[in-house]
Amino acid sequence: MHRVKVRVVEDALDANNTIARANRADFDRDGVTVVNLMSAPGAGKTALLERVVNDLPGVRVGVLEGDVQGSYDADRLASLHVPVTQLNTDPGFGGECHLDANMVRSAVPALPLREIDLLVIENVGNLVCPAEFRVGEDARVMVSSVTEGEDKPLKYPLMFRTCELVLVNKIDLLPHLDFDLDRFLRNLDAVHPGVPRRLVSARTGEGVDAWRDWLLELPARREGWVGAQ
Amino acid sequence: MHRVKVRVVEDALDANNTIARANRADFDRDGVTVVNLMSAPGAGKTALLERVVNDLPGVRVGVLEGDVQGSYDADRLASLHVPVTQLNTDPGFGGECHLDANMVRSAVPALPLREIDLLVIENVGNLVCPAEFRVGEDARVMVSSVTEGEDKPLKYPLMFRTCELVLVNKIDLLPHLDFDLDRFLRNLDAVHPGVPRRLVSARTGEGVDAWRDWLLELPARREGWVGAQ
Repeated sequence: MHRVKVRVVEDALDANNTIARANRADFDRDGVTVVNLMSAPGAGKTALLERVVNDLPGVRVGVLEGDVQGSYDADRLASLHVPVTQLNTDPGFGGECHLDANMVRSAVPALPLREIDLLVIENVGNLVCPAEFRVGEDARVMVSSVTEGEDKPLKYPLMFRTCELVLVNKIDLLPHLDFDLDRFLRNLDAVHPGVPRRLVSARTGEGVDAWRDWLLELPARREGWVGAQ
Repeated sequence: MHRVKVRVVEDALDANNTIARANRADFDRDGVTVVNLMSAPGAGKTALLERVVNDLPGVRVGVLEGDVQGSYDADRLASLHVPVTQLNTDPGFGGECHLDANMVRSAVPALPLREIDLLVIENVGNLVCPAEFRVGEDARVMVSSVTEGEDKPLKYPLMFRTCELVLVNKIDLLPHLDFDLDRFLRNLDAVHPGVPRRLVSARTGEGVDAWRDWLLELPARREGWVGAQ
């Protein structure tokens, strides 16, 4: 039984990767760089997007907003005059806990790919399954809030291991927490040695410049990644 | 395609419920009351357990610890001399994001059911899928941290709707957050009107007495539930 289950899962992930490549081809055709933004619920993905979407000179941003249901985050971003496409995962189930390549594929016709340079896909808040499904992104960014504790890289290693940037958010709360930042960073390096990280506070704006700079430099880094493939 | 998917999901949930009833029969045979404890990652499930497991007069507690991998929380609780059984969800996949009845069933032989009165099943940190799978519990308790924002009941309604108690944790941080507690409670009542809730801080101990009292009164409430069925 165990081997059968592994086979089914591998087939499903192979199928997902095939569709992810088709998404990627569509994004590449229009020169759109794509970020898959992931975190636990309430870690601050939307707040960190709100901080930068209107402050990226020369970069037209679009957002694909993944939620189980509702459009609360999409409404927040739309109020900043950013093109937002809502993708709900609830039809046919209590709600999928992640985006996969096929769900993103279903949204591609609705995306204004010719009018944007950077597409941010805000995934469902969850530290497990989103990490398992590529959706056609160039880079994965994950947000880890200091309120979640130092042990999270050890408990959810795939998420921390498969991202190109970790945003350590809510650092304005550090004086009020029993959170050992050095220990968190050691745990992070234990599962993903040297992964780029930025300490940020969406609330106060601390560190947001570095997050914006990372996004601005992303297309150049992406060229390097493509060249190295 | 859509209808086929719904059918498959319904069959899977039916099968899960059948196994959950078998688990429940085993728990009932030994007079064990069972709580399914759920939350987002880092909301404080383990910390809230640590606060009460040695302070429930006349109630012998056991814990079934669900994690994708590792035994960090189990080790914390075992150091308090509580019998802890570890259940990892990673074999055969990148890691299941929830416990289901069959996973719990596989752990039943390892549980010291004759030596405990209360079994707390600490689920995987996730606000989506754990809510979809009954595991044989008498009651569901969810922890929602004030650091996660006021919108969580609206974004993850199934989780908030299917629990018997909501622990609103980390209230010691309220002075340092832009968190509108009244708005959160209004959102909670919008998805689950009148659900019992306790405001707690695992860090300072505030409200922990009320959480402990709720657990102590659980067997009596459970008799009432069973009688009403």
